Amino acid sequence: MTHFDESARRAIDAKTKPLGALGRLEDIAVRLAVLQGTLAPRVDVARACVFAGDHGVTAEGVSAYPSAVTAEMMKNFVRGGAAINVIARTHSIDVEVIDVGVDADLTALEGIRHANVRRGTRNFAVEAAMTDAELDAALAVGADAAQRAATSGVQVLCLGEMGIGNTTSASALLSALTGQPASVTVGRGTGVDNSGLERKRVVVDRAIARHGLLHPGTNARDHLRCVGGLEIAAIAGGAIEAARRRIAVVADGFISTVAIACAARLAVAEHDETALRLREALFFSHRSAEWAHALALGVCGATIGADARPLLELDMRLGEGTGAAMAVPLLRTAAAILCDMATFASANVSAGNHAADHREGTES
Amino acid sequence: MTHFDESARRAIDAKTKPLGALGRLEDIAVRLAVLQGTLAPRVDVARACVFAGDHGVTAEGVSAYPSAVTAEMMKNFVRGGAAINVIARTHSIDVEVIDVGVDADLTALEGIRHANVRRGTRNFAVEAAMTDAELDAALAVGADAAQRAATSGVQVLCLGEMGIGNTTSASALLSALTGQPASVTVGRGTGVDNSGLERKRVVVDRAIARHGLLHPGTNARDHLRCVGGLEIAAIAGGAIEAARRRIAVVADGFISTVAIACAARLAVAEHDETALRLREALFFSHRSAEWAHALALGVCGATIGADARPLLELDMRLGEGTGAAMAVPLLRTAAAILCDMATFASANVSAGNHAADHREGTES
Repeated sequence: MTHFDESARRAIDAKTKPLGALGRLEDIAVRLAVLQGTLAPRVDVARACVFAGDHGVTAEGVSAYPSAVTAEMMKNFVRGGAAINVIARTHSIDVEVIDVGVDADLTALEGIRHANVRRGTRNFAVEAAMTDAELDAALAVGADAAQRAATSGVQVLCLGEMGIGNTTSASALLSALTGQPASVTVGRGTGVDNSGLERKRVVVDRAIARHGLLHPGTNARDHLRCVGGLEIAAIAGGAIEAARRRIAVVADGFISTVAIACAARLAVAEHDETALRLREALFFSHRSAEWAHALALGVCGATIGADARPLLELDMRLGEGTGAAMAVPLLRTAAAILCDMATFASANVSAGNHAADHREGTES
Repeated sequence: MTHFDESARRAIDAKTKPLGALGRLEDIAVRLAVLQGTLAPRVDVARACVFAGDHGVTAEGVSAYPSAVTAEMMKNFVRGGAAINVIARTHSIDVEVIDVGVDADLTALEGIRHANVRRGTRNFAVEAAMTDAELDAALAVGADAAQRAATSGVQVLCLGEMGIGNTTSASALLSALTGQPASVTVGRGTGVDNSGLERKRVVVDRAIARHGLLHPGTNARDHLRCVGGLEIAAIAGGAIEAARRRIAVVADGFISTVAIACAARLAVAEHDETALRLREALFFSHRSAEWAHALALGVCGATIGADARPLLELDMRLGEGTGAAMAVPLLRTAAAILCDMATFASANVSAGNHAADHREGTES
């Protein structure tokens, strides 16, 4: 632990409660203190970014929903009727919806951020999903969102997505990152039936082979370019930039976590300092019902040495940043504990035989 | 499922999300709809009751803290410095602190509810913790709190406690309820050392034998009277009355859950209707780091046929209603989903091949 870690831990141990009795909330509080460089961290201003993009690979019949749903959902977001809108309103979280690559002309749609790099990725079953320049543009869309968040005083940024077909892209990325076959990385997504599941698996295994993504010379940029999504790249870019600006980054479900696993690989390749920033900033909100999410969490944890145990297990599998938004109340509570709880001394409460200065020897 | 269950499930399935994608939040929403008898349930008004009492059994050296801490913490609650105050403020939850049996004269303390039945239980290592009349009085204190909550329009009631020594009482109750020895039911509570843990176990095993609580003729009333706590009995009484009034009841940690396990036994003994009401109203907030909590949850589930899987796993072990309060944002979110999310029809979003009216055959 750094010196500041220790100060934050001591501050929590002095609060009127048995040592460690607030469990993981205490760990979150310490991490927020370190991230913000203060013993009075705040997470009042929270934002959920919903990056949206379409996927050429849907031509292979990998999703239970038609691609048109992505654009339809953009209108639903604007009207405030989607799950992320409802959850965000419940917890006073700002929502920013960003068109990174929807396959529709949304220029007339007000209330979203227009940053369309191209109208959907190419079909990665037959060619690379995007060019190098398109990948850079998508990464920059995410970084821009993080910069806007910093300008607005956002203290916690939830990174969500919308894009029919994007579990297929995320599974392919996870196969590329881990070398695991599609039988491990592909799930039902929004709910494909058994034949759809089999199609997804074949598409993913063949794409990994076609693009040579298991060759030793390939890296996370190659993975994103060949089988990624524009909204997935934006999340990766957003995570890195938000972490640089010491904003807490909350991963959402399977797709968001895979995107952040790519960010972790990019960060490690770029600079140790970038990886450290990401480790300090990252919070993992929930474990999705999409089974490969656990593997994606493991990749994140292993890549940057982060604690990737998610905070919630609600069997959610929706995306949009909904799981990440559900974790915001936990972060707010943790910050409030450090800021607002009385200490044994300030409240004149007897500290028992587990006084704060004896943490190390209690159960010897 | 009842007809109303089905209506609520259909209403959720029509929302703009893949079927079942909000996981446990959907189940909570359905339960709230059934409990409140409406497809637009609300949990705006939430209250945490903190029932406080002392325990004569602390004379046996079973706690890391002196009994005086109970009264000291009452003052901390009033000043708003305790963990439950901070968490409740963060989530707009009202806090009511009730002196059911603190071993101190708190009559001059403003800001708490004065309902002291006696100044701490008797030491159950040597005699019954309370008389029949005292048990009835403590149960009534809880029922009164539930009635006040109903009068105030409370929609969700968190049942918490404060009382040095009360994990020993809760462990003894759990041993009585399950027949399991102290080696199974006794943990470190606020953090006793190894010798304290051994003392707790001996005290519990001997008390079960001394009071004959494993004899076939004994029931939950006998358990509460012989080895219970005044605050624990109040929680039991509060849970039953709140459930009768169709207020959502949120169990907290180990002690609260054991109290509710007693309530479940009392309810089953009293009337099938009472047990059904309790099953419909009960939500289990979190799994405590106190390991016997899992057993207590199992007893609740088995007794009244409830789903006793807790919503959160944050390794908390503080009591005061803190874990229950952490579940309130989940209940609020679930209600908001049912009330406020758009449907596929209202939002003009294509419903995919998992339309709401085909829930049953999707993965065949």
